[in-house]
Amino acid sequence: MSEKIRVAVAGAGGRMGREVVKMVLADDALELVAAIDRSGAGTDAGELVGLKPCGITASDNLDSALANAKPHVLVDFTVPSVVYSNTVTAIKHKVRPVVGATGFTPQQIEELDGLCREAKIGGLIAPNFSVGAILMMQFAAKAAEYLPHVEIIEYHGDQKLDAPSGTSIKTAELIAKGREKLKQGNPNEEEILPGARGGEYEGFRIHSVRLPGVFAQQEVVFGGYGQSLKIRHDSYERAGYMPGVNIGIKKVMEYEGMVYGFEHLM
Amino acid sequence: MSEKIRVAVAGAGGRMGREVVKMVLADDALELVAAIDRSGAGTDAGELVGLKPCGITASDNLDSALANAKPHVLVDFTVPSVVYSNTVTAIKHKVRPVVGATGFTPQQIEELDGLCREAKIGGLIAPNFSVGAILMMQFAAKAAEYLPHVEIIEYHGDQKLDAPSGTSIKTAELIAKGREKLKQGNPNEEEILPGARGGEYEGFRIHSVRLPGVFAQQEVVFGGYGQSLKIRHDSYERAGYMPGVNIGIKKVMEYEGMVYGFEHLM
Amino acid sequence: MSEKIRVAVAGAGGRMGREVVKMVLADDALELVAAIDRSGAGTDAGELVGLKPCGITASDNLDSALANAKPHVLVDFTVPSVVYSNTVTAIKHKVRPVVGATGFTPQQIEELDGLCREAKIGGLIAPNFSVGAILMMQFAAKAAEYLPHVEIIEYHGDQKLDAPSGTSIKTAELIAKGREKLKQGNPNEEEILPGARGGEYEGFRIHSVRLPGVFAQQEVVFGGYGQSLKIRHDSYERAGYMPGVNIGIKKVMEYEGMVYGFEHLM
Amino acid sequence: MSEKIRVAVAGAGGRMGREVVKMVLADDALELVAAIDRSGAGTDAGELVGLKPCGITASDNLDSALANAKPHVLVDFTVPSVVYSNTVTAIKHKVRPVVGATGFTPQQIEELDGLCREAKIGGLIAPNFSVGAILMMQFAAKAAEYLPHVEIIEYHGDQKLDAPSGTSIKTAELIAKGREKLKQGNPNEEEILPGARGGEYEGFRIHSVRLPGVFAQQEVVFGGYGQSLKIRHDSYERAGYMPGVNIGIKKVMEYEGMVYGFEHLM
Repeated sequence: MSEKIRVAVAGAGGRMGREVVKMVLADDALELVAAIDRSGAGTDAGELVGLKPCGITASDNLDSALANAKPHVLVDFTVPSVVYSNTVTAIKHKVRPVVGATGFTPQQIEELDGLCREAKIGGLIAPNFSVGAILMMQFAAKAAEYLPHVEIIEYHGDQKLDAPSGTSIKTAELIAKGREKLKQGNPNEEEILPGARGGEYEGFRIHSVRLPGVFAQQEVVFGGYGQSLKIRHDSYERAGYMPGVNIGIKKVMEYEGMVYGFEHLM
Repeated sequence: MSEKIRVAVAGAGGRMGREVVKMVLADDALELVAAIDRSGAGTDAGELVGLKPCGITASDNLDSALANAKPHVLVDFTVPSVVYSNTVTAIKHKVRPVVGATGFTPQQIEELDGLCREAKIGGLIAPNFSVGAILMMQFAAKAAEYLPHVEIIEYHGDQKLDAPSGTSIKTAELIAKGREKLKQGNPNEEEILPGARGGEYEGFRIHSVRLPGVFAQQEVVFGGYGQSLKIRHDSYERAGYMPGVNIGIKKVMEYEGMVYGFEHLM
Repeated sequence: MSEKIRVAVAGAGGRMGREVVKMVLADDALELVAAIDRSGAGTDAGELVGLKPCGITASDNLDSALANAKPHVLVDFTVPSVVYSNTVTAIKHKVRPVVGATGFTPQQIEELDGLCREAKIGGLIAPNFSVGAILMMQFAAKAAEYLPHVEIIEYHGDQKLDAPSGTSIKTAELIAKGREKLKQGNPNEEEILPGARGGEYEGFRIHSVRLPGVFAQQEVVFGGYGQSLKIRHDSYERAGYMPGVNIGIKKVMEYEGMVYGFEHLM
Repeated sequence: MSEKIRVAVAGAGGRMGREVVKMVLADDALELVAAIDRSGAGTDAGELVGLKPCGITASDNLDSALANAKPHVLVDFTVPSVVYSNTVTAIKHKVRPVVGATGFTPQQIEELDGLCREAKIGGLIAPNFSVGAILMMQFAAKAAEYLPHVEIIEYHGDQKLDAPSGTSIKTAELIAKGREKLKQGNPNEEEILPGARGGEYEGFRIHSVRLPGVFAQQEVVFGGYGQSLKIRHDSYERAGYMPGVNIGIKKVMEYEGMVYGFEHLM
């Protein structure tokens, strides 16, 4: 990989965008060539993220920024309302979109896939860029084929509103698909405290722990005859998604069409 | 401790009694001087527990066994129906009782305390001899004074009938006593799967995991601003109670009166 | 699977063989049809393993036992000195060998593979039947491709002679193969206590903990930017290998040739 | 506690000082009355720490700030070179010092204790304000009396220079004091990879794991016959010290003399 991959970042001043800019500047295999941000336009992109100036001034016009900077890849963590049109604009410029967002319809994804193929470029849309979380889910699905007795314990901050977490439900779906149908536990089991045995999902249990100081953690525990297997993922902060974005930028150079879901690149 | 402590074991052929006999034979500071067992009477106590002969023949008469062998201590893990009268018999012979049982009434304990004091000997009745479990409970109670946000996750075999476990409820009581009153979590919290947030006890949650292969485990997790503290105890087998029984035998030599609860010796 | 798989067990009175007999008797899809054991010959196989009689009397002659009982599968956990000839005998009778042993030479395996193919039957030789341990190793190798910073912590009983454990070294080999070359840690790191940083293997570290009460545990911990992933396997007892043997018995019915390594069936 | 405790913060613009200011502003039982900071002088203390204005302007003169604001407590996380004279100044104004620093000599502490007693106020100097870490150390020391077989595994970021960590050595000292002398492990143990068994401290082992993404974690694992006990502390960030500082501010109101070490208030 002798030539650097030229990267533009949309929403460079946002919470995730700032992490992306830092990550691109820190990787010798990548070169930041444009930063797009409405409120940060005119500021050096390095300063925008709290570093020293990097020589790239943020702009507020995606179209002209892509035309001038000729990036290979556009990383976009902006809001749902603009991300679809941003993605279309990028493909029009033959710039590979790497998008962190939920809320695309299947029709939109199919349409964007068609546009990518016409332009002979790759693209990536991913609701979750956490390499570790995706590995945890894949491993859990695989382990459930061999050790079908399983429970999930997930930990989040104590002000979180919903339980169980989205990641734990996604994991539970994958486990349920992977294993034989199974109603775990003693059929005559009694709860002295209602809810002690957790929430039931397809015959197994999910437990949601809520404590201050925790960002996001999950354990998937398998129990078998004389053994147990535990897969645990800890997210400490938003920056934990960056290794996944980094891999996405490099992989999107190697194929054509729009991939939905980071797990398909692993 | 130049002289060995002379030990008799009641119920020497039972599940716990066998472990006691093995433990006594393995400790140079202790000497097995009598073994009492209804169905094992006439057999060498070593053979009764699957070891080579030790020279002590099991008897089925507690009274005469104590009179002949003159033990310092009687360890008794027999059934509730006989353990009270066994204990009275032991004290009559000035033999210190070390008893693993639940079900004594406060009146019985007070009466036995009086008998011990008259005989100028110590005695010990303990529902739980697991040193590690007792330390876990003591540490949890202490930590809750400083880090009041806490949840308990307990693990047992998948055929266990009741949830949560007795140990987790005992732990929860100690935590609730130790900390300020506190209703944890977001008041607007919603359970997408009913029970996901566990069973509530005095404002915090207990989660019961049931999986094959597990004997007994418990985690008490405290969350604070920027930190967490976890205390975890794993019991692998019945033999895990023996270090506690060993300590009990030695401590009971040093005081007068009946102590209820192993934690008071720690 | 309407018809039961007919199973013979060699070394039925040995430590592993006894667990195999119990497992076969407990699974409705399997039928115990022969038990071979030198010292247990003449005893009912159920009684040999501490259960009630099962109607199968142990024999000390493998050849005639296989001829009479016509099993589909022979499970063999006997000693290295006889296991090779046992395997040849089984194949001669068109009985599929499922063998738990190390020490076969590549030539022997190749030869046995040829014999199996001639007989149009499957066979399995596996040094490790622990499903959980094999999953841990596979997951660790896969995770290292994406999260190359890793350390291994393994736990065994305090009387174990060698450190690190065989399983941890096998895991380390798989990790090293899976990831880019990487020398972890600060190059100017200093050990105030020699050995604190563990043993080095291809740029990462292995730590061996030795404590009483532990049978076999291993954690593989991956650290990335803002996240960590942990894979932990606990073996509590010898019986933990049985689910793997059970899978082996069923899978060996479905292919031809000799498979070396249980992981190839997963 | 009807009246609020009036708090001044020295070094309010520093890394720790900013956390202190935020913590004081967030606690209804405390009132920020002064902020001292050389480079931040003239700025509102709220703005100095990235919050909205709080009405207290930072000053660069400790003496006049204390004279004007009349705080009950001065929290000081400034550099070693000024902290001693700051502390003397505070006591002169009858302001209770709560100091996060190492490097005081025993003579200095004794002298400051005398000054506090003359002024009839309390004072606190603590190298470590992490409630969780101190509890972990206290629990480890206590557990070692009953379960003397122990190992420590500590985790820090992969660029840390020294191993093992200061906290693990402090923990090890407390463990060694608490338990009987004991050389753990098999005397004939062999290291296939040198260092695999960790660093030895008074007969037990310390293992130092270094991985990116980790701030500071420590596990103390005790192994006994049939059981294990694990105490684990995770620090996620600097803010984790604030609950300890908060307790310190409140406790220092209740005694006279200088206390060295936060553990003496627990």
